[in-house]
Amino acid sequence: MRTDIEIAQSASLEPIAAVAARLGIREEELELYGPHKAKVSFDLWERVKDRPDGKLVLVTAITPTPAGEGKTTTSVGLAQGLAAVGKKACVALREPSLGPVFGVKGGAAGGGRSQVVPMEDINLHFTGDLHAVSAAHNLLAALLDNSLHQGNELGIDPRRVALKRVMDMNDRTLRHIVAGLGGKADGVPREDGFDITVASEVMAILCLSTGISDLKARLAAIIVAYRPDGSPVTAGDLGAQGAMAMLLKDALKPNLVQTLEHVPAFIHGGPFANIAHGCNSLMATRYGLKLADYLVTEAGFAADLGAEKFLDIKCRLGGLHPDAAVLVATVRALKMHGGLPKERLGEENPEALEKGMPNLEKHVENLQKFGLPVVVAVNAFPTDTPRELAFVEEACARLGAPVSLCEGWAKGGAGAADLAKVVVEACGKPNGYKPLYEAELSPKEKILRIAREIYGAEGVQYTERAEGDLKTIHALGMDHLLVCMAKTQASLSDDPNKKGRPQGFTLTVREVRLSAGAGFLVPVTGSIMTMPGLPKRPAALSIDVDDRGRVTGLF
Amino acid sequence: MRTDIEIAQSASLEPIAAVAARLGIREEELELYGPHKAKVSFDLWERVKDRPDGKLVLVTAITPTPAGEGKTTTSVGLAQGLAAVGKKACVALREPSLGPVFGVKGGAAGGGRSQVVPMEDINLHFTGDLHAVSAAHNLLAALLDNSLHQGNELGIDPRRVALKRVMDMNDRTLRHIVAGLGGKADGVPREDGFDITVASEVMAILCLSTGISDLKARLAAIIVAYRPDGSPVTAGDLGAQGAMAMLLKDALKPNLVQTLEHVPAFIHGGPFANIAHGCNSLMATRYGLKLADYLVTEAGFAADLGAEKFLDIKCRLGGLHPDAAVLVATVRALKMHGGLPKERLGEENPEALEKGMPNLEKHVENLQKFGLPVVVAVNAFPTDTPRELAFVEEACARLGAPVSLCEGWAKGGAGAADLAKVVVEACGKPNGYKPLYEAELSPKEKILRIAREIYGAEGVQYTERAEGDLKTIHALGMDHLLVCMAKTQASLSDDPNKKGRPQGFTLTVREVRLSAGAGFLVPVTGSIMTMPGLPKRPAALSIDVDDRGRVTGLF
Repeated sequence: MRTDIEIAQSASLEPIAAVAARLGIREEELELYGPHKAKVSFDLWERVKDRPDGKLVLVTAITPTPAGEGKTTTSVGLAQGLAAVGKKACVALREPSLGPVFGVKGGAAGGGRSQVVPMEDINLHFTGDLHAVSAAHNLLAALLDNSLHQGNELGIDPRRVALKRVMDMNDRTLRHIVAGLGGKADGVPREDGFDITVASEVMAILCLSTGISDLKARLAAIIVAYRPDGSPVTAGDLGAQGAMAMLLKDALKPNLVQTLEHVPAFIHGGPFANIAHGCNSLMATRYGLKLADYLVTEAGFAADLGAEKFLDIKCRLGGLHPDAAVLVATVRALKMHGGLPKERLGEENPEALEKGMPNLEKHVENLQKFGLPVVVAVNAFPTDTPRELAFVEEACARLGAPVSLCEGWAKGGAGAADLAKVVVEACGKPNGYKPLYEAELSPKEKILRIAREIYGAEGVQYTERAEGDLKTIHALGMDHLLVCMAKTQASLSDDPNKKGRPQGFTLTVREVRLSAGAGFLVPVTGSIMTMPGLPKRPAALSIDVDDRGRVTGLF
Repeated sequence: MRTDIEIAQSASLEPIAAVAARLGIREEELELYGPHKAKVSFDLWERVKDRPDGKLVLVTAITPTPAGEGKTTTSVGLAQGLAAVGKKACVALREPSLGPVFGVKGGAAGGGRSQVVPMEDINLHFTGDLHAVSAAHNLLAALLDNSLHQGNELGIDPRRVALKRVMDMNDRTLRHIVAGLGGKADGVPREDGFDITVASEVMAILCLSTGISDLKARLAAIIVAYRPDGSPVTAGDLGAQGAMAMLLKDALKPNLVQTLEHVPAFIHGGPFANIAHGCNSLMATRYGLKLADYLVTEAGFAADLGAEKFLDIKCRLGGLHPDAAVLVATVRALKMHGGLPKERLGEENPEALEKGMPNLEKHVENLQKFGLPVVVAVNAFPTDTPRELAFVEEACARLGAPVSLCEGWAKGGAGAADLAKVVVEACGKPNGYKPLYEAELSPKEKILRIAREIYGAEGVQYTERAEGDLKTIHALGMDHLLVCMAKTQASLSDDPNKKGRPQGFTLTVREVRLSAGAGFLVPVTGSIMTMPGLPKRPAALSIDVDDRGRVTGLF
């Protein structure tokens, strides 16, 4: 069987201008990066912004297991399926981070016959957006430390610097450092550390901004440090937002590529799905909605995190009105939720499946709480049996959610045509989308609403630190910000070991971070890793490139 | 008077394909980055590599002063002048580093009517080469620390790690850090630090490589650390070169842009001129020589550093045969070398000029030692008087070096047409180019040769540390490597306060670094800054970008 990279490398790509033309984008509205990648210009937005939106379809998933769900593969497959049934379709995805490419994960561009291409480019430097985010973030950090060094006119407490530095690399050694050593000429010594670039608030801001003015205003609002009296110092106080925005001016423009079947794909922005909102850029989604009849998009992690944030944060801030949600599941993963160990997932096991189904049911119910039609996409594996599929179908029918088997991985768009038809039907239904909570509620009320309604918790408890954080937030007048939960993706609860549909638990909020520029509070409910490490044998060691520039070992 | 950025922004650019066509490059041999930037493909090289080379003209300068010399401006002006007199000309320059843009310096793309464009792009992310170098370098560092963390199979002494990390930023706070803090899961604590990206050995390697195989071999040879027994651990031992080369595969391809007068310009690679060799990439120079009749190129700092390294390192390693050297001087700078303070440079002062001339004379003599015809280009300032210019001309005539006034800044190619004619004539003369020293000499013999012949020193002394370094180098069998001097650019000596033509001094070598991948030893003769800091009021604070993406304050 061919690997993903072999399929991708043997694909015949269309010139990106031809792909763009399918969406009615003119050649002069493209900024080419080689023959198969382009950024779309702000002029295009001016031309299309007053059009009605196409249908917005969110692809999300059940709680992930090591068995894999294939959310990106299903998103790409669905877009190809929609094209296969004659719809003007487009897909909008996050752009991968470079760091994980060298760790365990490899690339992130779908799989099998449902990939976006050129796959190596997308997984490596692509159009430089992540590098631009790193540079803008680290410029801010350098300006902050320079301000400390040059006399500390802003009165920053060097023990209360909130901004770390970033690097797009899996590098645990940089998590905790002491910087500014070496003597008087070499800065002010203080504790510091690096996050991976996608954890930067600058990335979250890039993905929520509607234009350069909005970008600058959000950047200026980033809180970088506090004074001894507790008052915040912002990027705006440092005068950083103009130079940062200059570094980001091209990164703000969505990137257009294509799927293996030449369906247009926007791949743009990639904020973390724990401490940030985990969706591709608002700009890309908006362009896609103006240009296509169906825009398929995806949110990070499972529906309790990604979909909740998409619906409560991105759609609200961006004025988007989603038309349907697709919940991706696999029979294998459901059996794992039912307690079956990974080695035995190949066997038909109705008991495990029945025991695992409540996880899927809870996610369906959650999505319905937002007023959305929900479609369940079963990402097909060769080991699935008709009896198992029928079982899933019956359970979902009780919840009013149609089920479709998706064979996008093996067959591309043809394998997702049935799913596409079901989705088209769902999009035709009236829906009453509304966010789960009102922004005006207190932070604790907002957190409780999400914990009870989405996670199924009985209540929420706060550590002393979290209580202190909430006091600070209140004193800063930031109670009205939206809530961006940082929780394990491995469970509906805050305990990664609780599979299925946990009940009777209390959610513990350990701290509450403030992303004032992005516009949200981040209640942290566990240890959240914002700088990954490399494994014992990093994927980097298998990667090579030959004299013609051809890459091997990327997957 | 308009600023450089205003001139650049009001310029009308040709499509880069049209510029490329002037060199006979076919459209399919270009990889476009927007309408005005492109990388040239390896296929192009295969097509042209057997052609005879055009003429290679090196532009270098006298010892710099705060009065400014305008080396890049003269290089661009000369290329435009050559085109103006009917020659098929091309210019090859280093690409600017992002860090200094936010510090004191602003951009680096020539000035006035002799600039390369699009100026903002070239000064910012451009085609991502510097970001790729940062990523490749920091991947190597992450793999090294991961090896330490995962059991240290290679037996690295964490106190003897030779590789720092890099960032393309002026950030003094990162010069000296302690990393790996936080506990058992967060790496092995050790002293570390960051250099600016252009100081990375990876950048030097990128600029000396002739293809991907050569690149990988050089990357593998980088010494990253030592074991307790003194034996070196290389990037090859870590298995890093394949993944690093993958990150660099596009960065290795030269970037093509244009001057304000649409003369093709390769802007590619930018290693430091102190701890590295300070020239644009060998690849770009080779492409330019195959495609143009005259290739104008430039080397960093003054002729004692940049030209010496260009002629002894780059030309030797790349098999290049230069045809002429152009030494840039200004009457103002010569008067400063003669002791006149900056405030009084506007006045005619034959005494100061006479006292300053020996600096220029020494550089002319030095270039002649390499067997090259030398042309002196006086970069014109409005305050220059005919008497001063005549004086310079007479002095140079005694050395057999023709002089030409270059008005490229004010008038573009028309202002450099006279210089172009003089250069064409010089290129027609027979020359006996040969490097200054044989690689087979011992390191101390090589250093002495440069110190005596080029700097005018009486001898060289070594600190204890430097003696120890040389012993290590000898034990590693690396005596045969070329020598890449790290010395102040502000004087022919190692004392930045000695202007003019210092004599009777002894050069002190404080340490000798080893760049085994790049292929040279780096004798360090003073405190060399490899991570700049930001000034009290960084240039970043004046930079802004408007809603249409238009940048202000970059200069």
